[in-house]
Amino acid sequence: MKLIIGNKNYSSWSLRGWLALKAFNIPFEEINLTLFSDEFYTELAKHSPVGKVPVLVDGDLSVWDSLAICEYLNENYLNGKGWPEDKNKRAVARSIVADMHSGLFAIRNEMPMNCRAKRSIELTGVAKKEIASLDKTWSRLRSENTQNGDYLFGTFSLADVFFAPVAFRFATYGVEMSDASKAYINTMLAHPAMQEWLKGSREEKEIIDEAEVGREATSAL
Amino acid sequence: MKLIIGNKNYSSWSLRGWLALKAFNIPFEEINLTLFSDEFYTELAKHSPVGKVPVLVDGDLSVWDSLAICEYLNENYLNGKGWPEDKNKRAVARSIVADMHSGLFAIRNEMPMNCRAKRSIELTGVAKKEIASLDKTWSRLRSENTQNGDYLFGTFSLADVFFAPVAFRFATYGVEMSDASKAYINTMLAHPAMQEWLKGSREEKEIIDEAEVGREATSAL
Repeated sequence: MKLIIGNKNYSSWSLRGWLALKAFNIPFEEINLTLFSDEFYTELAKHSPVGKVPVLVDGDLSVWDSLAICEYLNENYLNGKGWPEDKNKRAVARSIVADMHSGLFAIRNEMPMNCRAKRSIELTGVAKKEIASLDKTWSRLRSENTQNGDYLFGTFSLADVFFAPVAFRFATYGVEMSDASKAYINTMLAHPAMQEWLKGSREEKEIIDEAEVGREATSAL
Repeated sequence: MKLIIGNKNYSSWSLRGWLALKAFNIPFEEINLTLFSDEFYTELAKHSPVGKVPVLVDGDLSVWDSLAICEYLNENYLNGKGWPEDKNKRAVARSIVADMHSGLFAIRNEMPMNCRAKRSIELTGVAKKEIASLDKTWSRLRSENTQNGDYLFGTFSLADVFFAPVAFRFATYGVEMSDASKAYINTMLAHPAMQEWLKGSREEKEIIDEAEVGREATSAL
């Protein structure tokens, strides 16, 4: 099984696909492409009709979206254990993941992922509102699920996979949150797979236009 | 089980949640709210942290995104039959649905859903590119899966649920496509549940600012 990804420092969607494999110890080969290079487009065109990373290639099959990859791995490699076991918690997990997948645009646009950097930023009201909403959700879930671990639903799940790039963003931009949410970010950043990704991002040499990464992620250009 | 939705004429995400229930004959009570009315916000706040339609309320549980609703219904009411049975086809179905869920912004922004209207439009190059990409995907899937029916994966599936608002949009704006894709749109429009939704949209009296519907759908405002 292969996972095609972009630059670790910049590609937030790549991180989601990669972490879904790595954190659950599913063996895979990593194919690294430099975002927006000629090779990026020619290689992706072989596997994906939409030309975006990540793409999971499992034999003859290509799966070309991070959420579809998560559901595929959950069904075929994790025996359903990627999501919380309780059916109601699982539905809530999928709801917050869907919100991340289809929205939270101010966070995504104003704070492009740049794992290895430290920055300060002046956020818009919309971004602050999104952060406050996430803060509320994270705090609530952590207080409801503490008995099983420090992740959103106790043990690590695909919901955490989806917020992994947000943890890097909030660390990069020094975003203020409640103590419960700060503790969650620290738990995420300390995960061995997250540390491995961060190390990889620091070893990369390329400088990519972050605005372009954002445009690619939110358009079909 | 209750489904909270917005105006049938305008609310494309509501249609997805509604069709997932209706087309698979799952009994439910429909709660109709006028988009952006006071009641809309107060009622939604009781069930959803993000304040968007549709919301599925099943006993104590609220599921607040159309894709999370589809996965919930698939697991708990459809015994997995909402998606194609073949594991590879299921992964492709989830990939194209994820692409619709998180992207195709030009189609969504330039052609706001207005089921009961007929319009002409000058599309941007980006929208044309998105349409061409959908056309290719729809045609390919239809030619691969004809033996079981006229939908994307033969029999009606959650993938069709996700493209239902696009079928209405392309009918409203007279979008040109290949014969295979036109046939698919006609198949979708002829579905009894789609006809019932269309009838409902014609019976509504409210006029909603379509630009506002688009902004709500693609922001956290």
